[in-house]
Amino acid sequence: MPAKVYIVGAGPGAADLLTLRAAALLRGAIVVLHDDLVPQEILSQCAASAQIINVGKRCGRHSRSQEQINALMVWYATEVQPPPAGGEAPIIVRLKSGDPSVFGRLGEEIDALRRADIPFEVVPGITAAAAAAAAAGITLTDRRAASALVLVTAHNARNESLERTIFDPARSTYAIYMPGPDYSRTARELMESGLDSATPCAVVSNAGRSDEQTRFLTLAELPAAKGIVAPALLIVGEVAKEHSPRLPSEDHPPAIDGTSVTSSPSLNL
Amino acid sequence: MPAKVYIVGAGPGAADLLTLRAAALLRGAIVVLHDDLVPQEILSQCAASAQIINVGKRCGRHSRSQEQINALMVWYATEVQPPPAGGEAPIIVRLKSGDPSVFGRLGEEIDALRRADIPFEVVPGITAAAAAAAAAGITLTDRRAASALVLVTAHNARNESLERTIFDPARSTYAIYMPGPDYSRTARELMESGLDSATPCAVVSNAGRSDEQTRFLTLAELPAAKGIVAPALLIVGEVAKEHSPRLPSEDHPPAIDGTSVTSSPSLNL
Repeated sequence: MPAKVYIVGAGPGAADLLTLRAAALLRGAIVVLHDDLVPQEILSQCAASAQIINVGKRCGRHSRSQEQINALMVWYATEVQPPPAGGEAPIIVRLKSGDPSVFGRLGEEIDALRRADIPFEVVPGITAAAAAAAAAGITLTDRRAASALVLVTAHNARNESLERTIFDPARSTYAIYMPGPDYSRTARELMESGLDSATPCAVVSNAGRSDEQTRFLTLAELPAAKGIVAPALLIVGEVAKEHSPRLPSEDHPPAIDGTSVTSSPSLNL
Repeated sequence: MPAKVYIVGAGPGAADLLTLRAAALLRGAIVVLHDDLVPQEILSQCAASAQIINVGKRCGRHSRSQEQINALMVWYATEVQPPPAGGEAPIIVRLKSGDPSVFGRLGEEIDALRRADIPFEVVPGITAAAAAAAAAGITLTDRRAASALVLVTAHNARNESLERTIFDPARSTYAIYMPGPDYSRTARELMESGLDSATPCAVVSNAGRSDEQTRFLTLAELPAAKGIVAPALLIVGEVAKEHSPRLPSEDHPPAIDGTSVTSSPSLNL
């Protein structure tokens, strides 16, 4: 059994804001590669036998590049030996503060794992915005005052101003809550707001549950999502591109309406 | 001891995507008021003696208005008796799917609790966007392709098009990750992108931890946030307005630089 990498969100730092799934994975992990910001209080939930490695970019005297972090992750996943007693795939946890998909370089780590054919799964965490709003006793959206929530970082890779970052549809991801059943209208409105009809989309239903399902399509094809069961969420933007299938067709069911359906994408890398 | 209301995010629906804090509150709650979307798998984690009430708007034959839900929450918090054995404040959980601050009418429920002088605390949860990205095996932001993440709902209260919703700075909330230390630049760039200098801001550091701290100010006053310790998050928009203090000054430390500092706002309502 080859090792499996779980890219896990540790949340904002309080140990009890870990999810039950994250806590269970930490208890079972053989190797934990964590960011600087993850506190000891969380790391102490790992098994005593686990190898715990700080891959934080400001760790120790020299800083690690993202490429080095990717390489470390791949190296451990390839080299780690299953425990003599158990027959299960060894668990390697890549522990990131907050939610991995929000300003966490998840895209680069996923790409590295895909290139190396290493099975992985992402476990979401509480992102900083949600934790901050809860701490301040305020809401982030409010139908009386705030219809949209925009997450940006003041320190972006291109060193662009917030003004340029906020208003560039080609460099934004849109997460559309309650997108159905009229996906045609949603698609039309997004194109009216400046998005190209070829923009990748992912429609995810029952996320996080055993019956979760993802369908990848383009904005032009979005009306075909009509029959997807609620609760669903629509992700629109370059990040929503389907990864190239690596396995023969029986692992990717035949296309329906010109789109393809995958369930539990982590299982068929 | 009066009852305390915990407005808790249940996450996307998988029982193990609850936080440890949410699970502990469910075990200790006397009354749980939950949304329709929260599955039985999660509700079964409540104590056997707990009163579990579906306040979902589509519950049973008639639907409940938000006003009725607010009234129920206030009524239980006022009427519930502490258990004879314990001396602790009874716990009432208002359980909402996803994260309470994202498209969950948290603002209206908080307002109702404040008006009734009922102590409350918000416990963040995994929002649908994070769960969906994890399920699809994709990221939401990527420094190579997506610098901003925009959360909107296709069904908003004003029935406005997504185009109008996405590009109206006056009706958006901005969550700025890594805002410091140059808050002057952040403030200037936000004003350049069309935000009024009087827009409310909340700077939250160490969210979710015991040393969490929130400072409320306006965009014009934001440079005064310079000394705030990292990790911090900046929330900008109408929702970031400080609630009117209800208690005398010893509960609200004196103003610094024209702003006020509160810690654990839930404790000094």
